[in-house]
Amino acid sequence: MEMKHVEGGVCAAKGFKAWGAFGGLGDPKADKDDMALVLSECPGAAAAVYTSNKVKAAHILVDKKHLENGVAQAMLCNSVNANTCNADGEERAIANAELVAKETGISAEDVIVTSTGVIGKPMPGEPFEKGIPELVKGLSADGGDKAAHAIMTTDTLDKQTAVTFMAGGKECTLGGMAKGSGMIHINMGTMLCFMTTDCAITAQMLQRALDFEVKDSFNQVSIDGDTSTNDTLSIIANGMAGNSVINGEGEDFDNFKAALHEVSVTFAKKIAGDGEGCTKLIEAHVVNAPTKDTARLISKNIICSSLFKAAMFGNDANWGRVLCAIGYTPADFETDDIDVTISSAKGSVDVCDGSASMPFDEEKALEILKEDEVTVDVDINDGESEAYAWGCDLTYDYVKINGEYRS
Amino acid sequence: MEMKHVEGGVCAAKGFKAWGAFGGLGDPKADKDDMALVLSECPGAAAAVYTSNKVKAAHILVDKKHLENGVAQAMLCNSVNANTCNADGEERAIANAELVAKETGISAEDVIVTSTGVIGKPMPGEPFEKGIPELVKGLSADGGDKAAHAIMTTDTLDKQTAVTFMAGGKECTLGGMAKGSGMIHINMGTMLCFMTTDCAITAQMLQRALDFEVKDSFNQVSIDGDTSTNDTLSIIANGMAGNSVINGEGEDFDNFKAALHEVSVTFAKKIAGDGEGCTKLIEAHVVNAPTKDTARLISKNIICSSLFKAAMFGNDANWGRVLCAIGYTPADFETDDIDVTISSAKGSVDVCDGSASMPFDEEKALEILKEDEVTVDVDINDGESEAYAWGCDLTYDYVKINGEYRS
Repeated sequence: MEMKHVEGGVCAAKGFKAWGAFGGLGDPKADKDDMALVLSECPGAAAAVYTSNKVKAAHILVDKKHLENGVAQAMLCNSVNANTCNADGEERAIANAELVAKETGISAEDVIVTSTGVIGKPMPGEPFEKGIPELVKGLSADGGDKAAHAIMTTDTLDKQTAVTFMAGGKECTLGGMAKGSGMIHINMGTMLCFMTTDCAITAQMLQRALDFEVKDSFNQVSIDGDTSTNDTLSIIANGMAGNSVINGEGEDFDNFKAALHEVSVTFAKKIAGDGEGCTKLIEAHVVNAPTKDTARLISKNIICSSLFKAAMFGNDANWGRVLCAIGYTPADFETDDIDVTISSAKGSVDVCDGSASMPFDEEKALEILKEDEVTVDVDINDGESEAYAWGCDLTYDYVKINGEYRS
Repeated sequence: MEMKHVEGGVCAAKGFKAWGAFGGLGDPKADKDDMALVLSECPGAAAAVYTSNKVKAAHILVDKKHLENGVAQAMLCNSVNANTCNADGEERAIANAELVAKETGISAEDVIVTSTGVIGKPMPGEPFEKGIPELVKGLSADGGDKAAHAIMTTDTLDKQTAVTFMAGGKECTLGGMAKGSGMIHINMGTMLCFMTTDCAITAQMLQRALDFEVKDSFNQVSIDGDTSTNDTLSIIANGMAGNSVINGEGEDFDNFKAALHEVSVTFAKKIAGDGEGCTKLIEAHVVNAPTKDTARLISKNIICSSLFKAAMFGNDANWGRVLCAIGYTPADFETDDIDVTISSAKGSVDVCDGSASMPFDEEKALEILKEDEVTVDVDINDGESEAYAWGCDLTYDYVKINGEYRS
């Protein structure tokens, strides 16, 4: 099968436009857009996955209702205010969907609304009354960049990606934008991720693909172990690629899932590599675990360890902390024959053999660890299952950003 | 019942002596003792609890065998080297017990051996051949301070406490020493804690008291979410107080458990308040949860949140992060009527009412948060159970200490 990366992000697929605007949700003099809108030319099949946190953003309650019929046409997102733990949160989210409906002529129930920012701060309506008309006026097939920037909070880089793939003999495109940075320990969706595709697929198959895919991409990302109240991954499939609709298992669905996996893993790495204050992306790759779930848990435990994350910041090949994190993984497996290798663009070095120390070249390890992307390969030698997880180092800047965020 | 705090730490109870010495396990020019020994005049009933980490320090395997008969007379502890993930780890631990036996004349099986320090570094025998004779020569009823200092790693303060209580009409004493600091997310014992008592009690009742007590003290402490490979809490009861032996439930056992609770909670707070790089102790106090286990989980989740810990470092009353941490607690409870109050020696301020924002005095909150000990009171309003947990803030120094620890 052919799959290639293309430009355009959330507007890469046919029939999608986007834009960003400044409504003034926080500092009225801020120089960064604080809301974004994505619109499809026609209603599409839609699906979403949400945070597992019991304290949920108001938008999640509203979106669950809006997506009951599996149809959506627009995605609205604001930064600065999470609209979580607010008494009138649901009302505000619904009012915003209605504003989008009024300005675009689509149905308010076809708008997916999302928020990210500070929890428990009342969210005013005026900024949306100002910003939403601007968003609609600006909508453009070239607006993906502007939208992707508008949803950033402490992200240092915007996060966009898109791929093309074949379904029913037609070239389809799947793209999206995301935000990450802090309060990231995904357990269901990502902090916020918006995907668009022109592939024709039923809402049911879309949801099935999403539920399957998040387990090995978004749910394997952690910045700080904190599962946000707002995590939402939503997707609209408008069918404009002209392929015969995917309504069951088969080669087309496999191709769609492969594209979804590629886009999801790309976002997972982008989010992990741009964690708050981080200097590098850390990938944990576990092989030969007894089960897939165990491999997932072990790899995620490694990239969640504060001690290992701090060692990575210090470029210290402290494999003892890897073994420690493996050891407190809540799963059943043997721990007496584990091998650990550390690698990056500068090469690789074995640091632990059979769960015991071994001589290795510390200078070489230092050179490897100084790179922006470091992989920790772990062989459990107790099965045949494999998994990846992505995280980042723990730095002075993470503490600085989060010691000062709200004020 | 009468219970009062007394001086003397691990030597406070009758018949216990201790000492610290420098064997040279790390830098030969280091100016800090790296091993400690505690000896009872006679063999006593003994019990221990160990880490739940599947990767276990060699000493744990040895101690489990040594404590099979419920008897011990000495506790040896070294810092600098964890003796974990070492091929000859068990041999080394046994050799050290034999050295203590040779120098003191007691049985090697009555020595509890423990290690803390770097994982996966071969541990040489020579430092013990030098240090253990010095330890035995120095043993003194005034040696508690020296021993408590010798077991410190990145701790900034030694940790000692002792209380007296009544059993069978006799005054008994229970004391101990501990080390904490990093890789602290206790799940069974503490990093290392050594208790001594002159109370007469069977090994079986001692173990029962320990198993019960750790749930609400040591297991409710977290510095960084990393459960160490070495956590061990051990206790020797030499019976020299002359009380009739506690061999079942009853008032004496209740008094003993109350003393054990007081000593354990004191250590829990000392360990949390001296977390690596921390500037303050954070206590989470949860009331009105549906079950005791749920209250424990919620309180521990709060003090484990990296985001909340960073906010505490920044003296930011960011209660949204408390709600977020409560929300991802893996337990079943309602989240729509939660109240949060923050307090310290400077007073208290309500910051969240019914899971929603409320106006509060930010200046007052700042003043409260600047103290060394801060309590977060959380009312779940969904039951009648209560629990405490203890942690610390996340600071630049935690990152610095752990980015540089091994090298």
